[in-house]
Amino acid sequence: MSVKELKRELLRIAKIKSAISLLQWDLATYIPPNGIEWRAEVLGELSEYVFSLLTSERLGELIYEAQEEAENEEDIALVRLTKKEYEKHKKIPRDLFIEFQKKRAIAEKLWEEARKKDDFSILQESLSNIVKIIIEIADSIGYEENRYDALLDEHEPGLKTSKLKEICYYMKENLLILLGEIEPKHLKLKRLSEICDGEFPLDKQKEFCLKLINTLGFDPSSGRLDTSAHPFTELIGLKDVRITTRYDERDFSQAMFAALHECGHALYDLGIPERLFGLPTGDGASSGFHESQARFWENFIGRSSHFLIFIKPILDEYFPQLKKIGLEELWQAFNIVKRSYIRVSSDEVTYNLHIMLRFELEEALVNGNLSVHDLPQAWGEKMEEYLGIKARDFRSGVLQDIHWASGLFGYFPSYMLGNIYAGQIYFKLKKDVGNLEEIVSKGEFNLISNWLKEKIYSFGKLYEPLELVKRISGEELSPKYLIEYLRDKFLRGES
Amino acid sequence: MSVKELKRELLRIAKIKSAISLLQWDLATYIPPNGIEWRAEVLGELSEYVFSLLTSERLGELIYEAQEEAENEEDIALVRLTKKEYEKHKKIPRDLFIEFQKKRAIAEKLWEEARKKDDFSILQESLSNIVKIIIEIADSIGYEENRYDALLDEHEPGLKTSKLKEICYYMKENLLILLGEIEPKHLKLKRLSEICDGEFPLDKQKEFCLKLINTLGFDPSSGRLDTSAHPFTELIGLKDVRITTRYDERDFSQAMFAALHECGHALYDLGIPERLFGLPTGDGASSGFHESQARFWENFIGRSSHFLIFIKPILDEYFPQLKKIGLEELWQAFNIVKRSYIRVSSDEVTYNLHIMLRFELEEALVNGNLSVHDLPQAWGEKMEEYLGIKARDFRSGVLQDIHWASGLFGYFPSYMLGNIYAGQIYFKLKKDVGNLEEIVSKGEFNLISNWLKEKIYSFGKLYEPLELVKRISGEELSPKYLIEYLRDKFLRGES
Repeated sequence: MSVKELKRELLRIAKIKSAISLLQWDLATYIPPNGIEWRAEVLGELSEYVFSLLTSERLGELIYEAQEEAENEEDIALVRLTKKEYEKHKKIPRDLFIEFQKKRAIAEKLWEEARKKDDFSILQESLSNIVKIIIEIADSIGYEENRYDALLDEHEPGLKTSKLKEICYYMKENLLILLGEIEPKHLKLKRLSEICDGEFPLDKQKEFCLKLINTLGFDPSSGRLDTSAHPFTELIGLKDVRITTRYDERDFSQAMFAALHECGHALYDLGIPERLFGLPTGDGASSGFHESQARFWENFIGRSSHFLIFIKPILDEYFPQLKKIGLEELWQAFNIVKRSYIRVSSDEVTYNLHIMLRFELEEALVNGNLSVHDLPQAWGEKMEEYLGIKARDFRSGVLQDIHWASGLFGYFPSYMLGNIYAGQIYFKLKKDVGNLEEIVSKGEFNLISNWLKEKIYSFGKLYEPLELVKRISGEELSPKYLIEYLRDKFLRGES
Repeated sequence: MSVKELKRELLRIAKIKSAISLLQWDLATYIPPNGIEWRAEVLGELSEYVFSLLTSERLGELIYEAQEEAENEEDIALVRLTKKEYEKHKKIPRDLFIEFQKKRAIAEKLWEEARKKDDFSILQESLSNIVKIIIEIADSIGYEENRYDALLDEHEPGLKTSKLKEICYYMKENLLILLGEIEPKHLKLKRLSEICDGEFPLDKQKEFCLKLINTLGFDPSSGRLDTSAHPFTELIGLKDVRITTRYDERDFSQAMFAALHECGHALYDLGIPERLFGLPTGDGASSGFHESQARFWENFIGRSSHFLIFIKPILDEYFPQLKKIGLEELWQAFNIVKRSYIRVSSDEVTYNLHIMLRFELEEALVNGNLSVHDLPQAWGEKMEEYLGIKARDFRSGVLQDIHWASGLFGYFPSYMLGNIYAGQIYFKLKKDVGNLEEIVSKGEFNLISNWLKEKIYSFGKLYEPLELVKRISGEELSPKYLIEYLRDKFLRGES
């Protein structure tokens, strides 16, 4: 009875969150520019309401009662997750939460201006305020070893900063070797715009992307594909997941890979059992696990030569100028490994280096070992250390991502962890299905989806990510599979 | 100080309402079909929250305090309107409100099914429940003369059912005479599809509609034009008003007139002073006044020959097949007066007869003088009485409008009152500007908008509609101007 009541209260909160999701989706897609200011107010109001529901005495009582009663694994996990969330929220002073919302909104605006004018000083003070609040929040939540743990746990429950640093150490060592071996061979490779003239009409690109995600199993009755400046996935409600992509008239692959990435997120959201929807158990296992699904479809599948075999005839139909381009040439155009400034457009090897750089900087900021004032210089030093290139300007450097201005500290590692989880998942999948290359080149994606559903989606957030990856692969979290995959793909010609 | 606090609380409520508006807009435009069920839950949850805020002790106290302090006209009106709203909501039992929301959702679904299958019996029981609840709500709110007053006051504050009946009496008498005189002359007139071959591409229609509403003063930075099954206007937030239209490939005028109609609503919403936004004083004066602005642009301006002079060159550019059609022929195609079944597609004369029929039936239902069981037969009798045509089926009869299934009783008169207000406004505008025909044929719509802004928009809901119409026209509410306008237009050839 009280588990049922707890669920009812949690669904009530989920409904308010659903409204917030739609408000945010609309803000990034269809809102007329003059409506943005008021929208921020609406979002602030609803966030405060959710905060008050998440810290209400009523919820506390319901958790307490349900705890006595929960018997099956799912209910026990539900109570555990809800309690953790509740206790965490209770520790954050309400005024601090409200101040955080307001300061974030200001910092995001200043970030946009700073980026446009390529002037970090515009953002500096505001970002210092954000870091100060983040530190207060982390201290309110509490931690054992490292203040950063309090933030990381939100996105990667159970993972400690110390463990993450070990992983980074391994990754750095191996990636730098890999990069040194691959890059010289890739110097002569040509990008799509260099091998293919002519434009790719936007409406054709959109049609193609829709067809592609449908083929992957994205049901248009339960979601949408729209356009936004930065591609994203928003879970709006039960059976309503919206993804976006962006289009470049000279290079269809931008839209295609973004659509594949977001489709990966969407398939995860839509694949979690309906009975868990809206409950804390009904999320993905972690941010990193969510990213793993996105990166899996985008890179492990989408950038493979077997996937190209499958989509080449479809591509030729939509974009006839591609007919004269061979499979090998196209694969190369999609897989050039090269040191560059921008994270989101970087290749599978250097992407992780971009992430580690950010992780180290944000960990230093949060622990008071780096000031926002010194951040641009530290960024420059890390760029040289990790990517061997000199910072060019703020825009393609420290100002390229909105995360910090948004107060999103502790998220960046999820992108790298996503790649690492995907590596482990990929090897297990290959082993289990036997003929992955054939499956992909024939476009039999439901065989892959079903496997992912069984091994990952069906569990929602019942297990912590470190436990889930063990259940899937039979091994502890390990970056060696990702390194192995990259070595196979870029040095042994297997992909 | 306490007026300020009252305003802050009211804006808080406005923010939640803003989220509801977006959820509803999305439900009618972009939601994927499988997401509809959950959306209904989200809307129910937020409606309950708004209800609880509107009936909170805190709001009661704030009103009480603000009442002591309000000095200027705006603040006094604010307290008056808020108090009225508060007291009304306080009288409705919370459980009744929640039941109403649920029953409405059910009835709306059954209405859709009943309409599709052309079977009134599918809806009958559910609609009876709605009527029962509506009666309970009206009795909770209270009234002096007629139970219908309690419902009418929501949409047309200050207007009594007895007065409305007088107006209908006058309207019926005059419209039936008019119809008898006009219809025989219109028998030979041809519709657009009869004089013009070929299709009107949807993208061209959309471009044209956008250009048209921009010309009328609709700022695309503060709103959008989208597509939906039934055109509507939704005020999403400050400087964010969204309108929709629908497209018929064989007849562009469907989309054009719907866009003009909704644009009229939008211009009203956007024209109300920003300082009133989100407050009860920041609405339109009444539903009828809102409709007056929609019908004014759609019919008084949009269906006039002078407007055609202005848009014909633009139309020819977008739709070359129209070049060979003369102005007179086009005007006729847009203005055929003919008895028909469907309200939304009826002409300016018979439209009001459709409304009176509905008003009489809903007034009888609400007062227990008619049962839902007998509604279809009563509908048929009224159709013969008012329009002289026999009911054909349910779909084009009693099942054509969603209003009753949605629990929207007391709204229908707003459409007719809108025409009547528009008539009075039109004559005063003509007098004030002197050369309306020339202004319209030259497309100098800002002269009209500025007048409307000064006389109507700028007052928001400060005055009740019967007072506002007197302030604008110098006369009491009177249907004679509408009749005069129709006579001028259809019998004296002035339009």
